[in-house]
Amino acid sequence: MDVARELLSGNVLAGARAIRWLDDRDRRGAQVLSSVFPHTGRAQIIGVTGPPGAGKSTLANAMITEQRRRGRRVGVVAIDPTSPFSGGAILGDRVRMARHTLDPGVFIRSVGTRGHAGGLSRSTHDTCLILDAMGYDVIFVETVGVGQDEIDIVALAHTTIIIGVPGLGDEVQAIKAGLMEVGDVFVINKADREGYEATRQQFELMLHLREEARPADAFDWSPPLLPAVATRDEGIAGIIDATDRHGSKLRDSGEFARMSGRRERAQALALMGEEMLRIAMERADAEVLSAVEARQIDPYEAARLLVHRLSPVQEE
Amino acid sequence: MDVARELLSGNVLAGARAIRWLDDRDRRGAQVLSSVFPHTGRAQIIGVTGPPGAGKSTLANAMITEQRRRGRRVGVVAIDPTSPFSGGAILGDRVRMARHTLDPGVFIRSVGTRGHAGGLSRSTHDTCLILDAMGYDVIFVETVGVGQDEIDIVALAHTTIIIGVPGLGDEVQAIKAGLMEVGDVFVINKADREGYEATRQQFELMLHLREEARPADAFDWSPPLLPAVATRDEGIAGIIDATDRHGSKLRDSGEFARMSGRRERAQALALMGEEMLRIAMERADAEVLSAVEARQIDPYEAARLLVHRLSPVQEE
Repeated sequence: MDVARELLSGNVLAGARAIRWLDDRDRRGAQVLSSVFPHTGRAQIIGVTGPPGAGKSTLANAMITEQRRRGRRVGVVAIDPTSPFSGGAILGDRVRMARHTLDPGVFIRSVGTRGHAGGLSRSTHDTCLILDAMGYDVIFVETVGVGQDEIDIVALAHTTIIIGVPGLGDEVQAIKAGLMEVGDVFVINKADREGYEATRQQFELMLHLREEARPADAFDWSPPLLPAVATRDEGIAGIIDATDRHGSKLRDSGEFARMSGRRERAQALALMGEEMLRIAMERADAEVLSAVEARQIDPYEAARLLVHRLSPVQEE
Repeated sequence: MDVARELLSGNVLAGARAIRWLDDRDRRGAQVLSSVFPHTGRAQIIGVTGPPGAGKSTLANAMITEQRRRGRRVGVVAIDPTSPFSGGAILGDRVRMARHTLDPGVFIRSVGTRGHAGGLSRSTHDTCLILDAMGYDVIFVETVGVGQDEIDIVALAHTTIIIGVPGLGDEVQAIKAGLMEVGDVFVINKADREGYEATRQQFELMLHLREEARPADAFDWSPPLLPAVATRDEGIAGIIDATDRHGSKLRDSGEFARMSGRRERAQALALMGEEMLRIAMERADAEVLSAVEARQIDPYEAARLLVHRLSPVQEE
């Protein structure tokens, strides 16, 4: 099978194979990606995040359905940070999403870390590129939203949806400025629940503060705050209207292409870093490592020696 | 002030300054660490983790009190993963821990990522070494337990306490094999709550499976499962009895020193990796970066070129 050609024509088996190769660092993955890269840069990547219990997967399901209604092919990248405490929840999400698995216009992939630091971000980006090449018009990148890593990834999307929910309590609800800053569309799900009005006011205040602080040269977009009841399909069309509006504005202003370029640049640097680390680990001086393990030298001194022995890299 | 000498005599201002220097990558930090390193390797490092809502900080407080009762000086490293969703909880924890701030036998430091990947682990280790040099007998490393990063860090402790709690629901309660494997002492806090028996059985089953799977050459320790009600100070002495027993067994067998050695080795490699990355980023070829940003080449090809231009590092 000519994997590159097949995936460009939308063959899901070819797409899945390319993604697996990339995950496994099989050389064929990079080769396929190179062939299909000219056909990428078209899909709108939409990040979706929020605290556990916000009903993200139900909302994601409803948004997929709405996008399909508008005639779009939809890719989904579900990020599994392999958090020991959220395993059950994620498995549940994947099962709930299964209702779209028979629809050839929807392609869902889970991405895990497999223990690599930074691997989550790289895999997510690779998967988005493959789905983009396969012709999906919209790609949802969905996380459980528990760590900085996931937030960073979602922030790399063209459009980011932040989901809140009434009455989850301060422990999971507290949303720091960092997250408010990356959101383009804010949704309060389960808006029929008690505590909605308080949560809405809290979000509005934060959005107001953000507007006040916005630099004059920032992209001109005031994030809407939208109520939804995903289980009853309420508010979903309004959310997709908002992401459509945001997407159009990005494209019209040229910001869409600039964002995509920044993503590729970041990915290239991350891949370079991985490779440099691999080389450095492989060549780490065994003597120095033994000495630090025996506590004869301290880790800072050991690191200095290790870098020095990888000369001439350090000589500037 | 001679920071190294002062911190060895237990001066908390000197300790705080050394930790700040290390966090800021100020050269003086590494210098101080080198001077005091021969005085480290004595403290028992105890990792404490569990899902949000398990009452970790109340339990940590009670364990600090119990360690003080036994005449030990106690250091605490509280890991703040700067998760956008747990900000409130962590702030609360720190405030609750304030009751020990007037006790000169207790020294509490928070560690954050400041956006560096891997920085959490490095900072935690640095802070532990400084507290160790300051003469604290026991160092608790406490995390909110929401991500793989934090689990990895806690797993580096000599002794790891995993805290569960009845009735949190599957979403936060599901504990994967990975976490079960790193625990040395298991505690079910809030044991007076409904659902305790079910949670206890669940933990016991998992511990039983772990015992079955234990390799013959593994360290000979069967993790106890202990009930506690931290708010009423119930079960706390039993937990510290268990961590004491674990610590003694580690020391008697020589495993304590081996674990410490492995920690230093891992830290040296992490510091080397950081420095190699810094060098690579600094020297990344601007032409290649522009080309990938303009989507003229794909990120894999760009990374290959970037590594190549950092030659001769790649020439093997």
